Amino acid sequence: MPADLVPTDATRPRRDERGSFDRALIYSVIDEALFCHVGFVGEDRPVVIPMLHARVEHQLLLHGAPATRLFRVLAKAPEICVTVTLLDGLVLARSAFEHSANYRSVVIFGKPHRVRGLEERTAALDAITDKLVPGRRPHLRPMTENEVKATAVLRLAISEASAKVRTGPPKDKEPDYELPIWAGVVPFELSRLKPIPDPRNLEGLDVPEHIRAWGTKA
Amino acid sequence: MPADLVPTDATRPRRDERGSFDRALIYSVIDEALFCHVGFVGEDRPVVIPMLHARVEHQLLLHGAPATRLFRVLAKAPEICVTVTLLDGLVLARSAFEHSANYRSVVIFGKPHRVRGLEERTAALDAITDKLVPGRRPHLRPMTENEVKATAVLRLAISEASAKVRTGPPKDKEPDYELPIWAGVVPFELSRLKPIPDPRNLEGLDVPEHIRAWGTKA
Repeated sequence: MPADLVPTDATRPRRDERGSFDRALIYSVIDEALFCHVGFVGEDRPVVIPMLHARVEHQLLLHGAPATRLFRVLAKAPEICVTVTLLDGLVLARSAFEHSANYRSVVIFGKPHRVRGLEERTAALDAITDKLVPGRRPHLRPMTENEVKATAVLRLAISEASAKVRTGPPKDKEPDYELPIWAGVVPFELSRLKPIPDPRNLEGLDVPEHIRAWGTKA
Repeated sequence: MPADLVPTDATRPRRDERGSFDRALIYSVIDEALFCHVGFVGEDRPVVIPMLHARVEHQLLLHGAPATRLFRVLAKAPEICVTVTLLDGLVLARSAFEHSANYRSVVIFGKPHRVRGLEERTAALDAITDKLVPGRRPHLRPMTENEVKATAVLRLAISEASAKVRTGPPKDKEPDYELPIWAGVVPFELSRLKPIPDPRNLEGLDVPEHIRAWGTKA
């Protein structure tokens, strides 16, 4: 892994101490999140859209239908901002003022580039499928050339980026610690529930191992 | 509740049929989500930041420290974009190409305004606390005037907004339904886990009812 990232005017932390340029931390947040929010300027207005993503080495990958306005605008944008957020919990303090959230977030700035070659694009789409459902791709009907051609892929170098993290208990004003008020953290987790089979599945097909391995709950 | 919203150039759905202007749907997504992503243009660059939010009637509320660059920029922005996304599940098709996500998202465009008066600001902060942890506020040390003064609140009218929703099983290409590949949906849920008491809690304080009522898991 290359060295940690370098702050720029856009990513340098301001008021607080939560900012980090630790590459391993930044990548772990990107990899754990299933989707991101992509911000761009469209006709002078800020626009924010949720998208699925994947990371391959030091590039973030986004995909979509090439004919959509979204993709035409993104592919030409001089710069976009991709933000990934994991909400880890609510921080319940003794005063409303000190309530907060525990979270890990990453912000990436940069110019996206179209992934052009068919082979390169196939590899990128495979990476996106592998991230979405690890272990599933070998069980699927293989992608056709037309499907690859019908999908636009953008890559964004993860170079101007930073992470922000808040963890731990509330930080109350010192006198408030004397109050008989329960304080603490309520942790959150994105749980996978029991898979719902497609009503059109062929008879006798069981939930495959790569999905059962997720440890889904009833 | 007033009539449903009216599409504009920014919110009119493009390629797909997933867009909706149903006010009840839009409000339900905003109310279920604990946080949103706020997009603005800062020095000609798009910036996307996660923030906690609340809704009071037809206004979205955001809050923060008034001295931060973020709040100074937001308060002056001619327009921001607030996007709220709930990921409901992964849609596992028979081909990689048809994999998708079930989700509900809302995009709101508009100019934010500072909530000025002390009383109005107190009511807004109370609404934010009530949304974050319903039933908790009566148990807290009351907010002081200085705390209200130290918090900036922005309101954004929910008038130029739309929702997008995907639900249901995968939509595979017709011949793929003959393949012996398990397809379906893996639903997601943001679960609250067992509360972690602040190590500085006074002795003998139990997890209060307003938190136990969340039905947290071990």
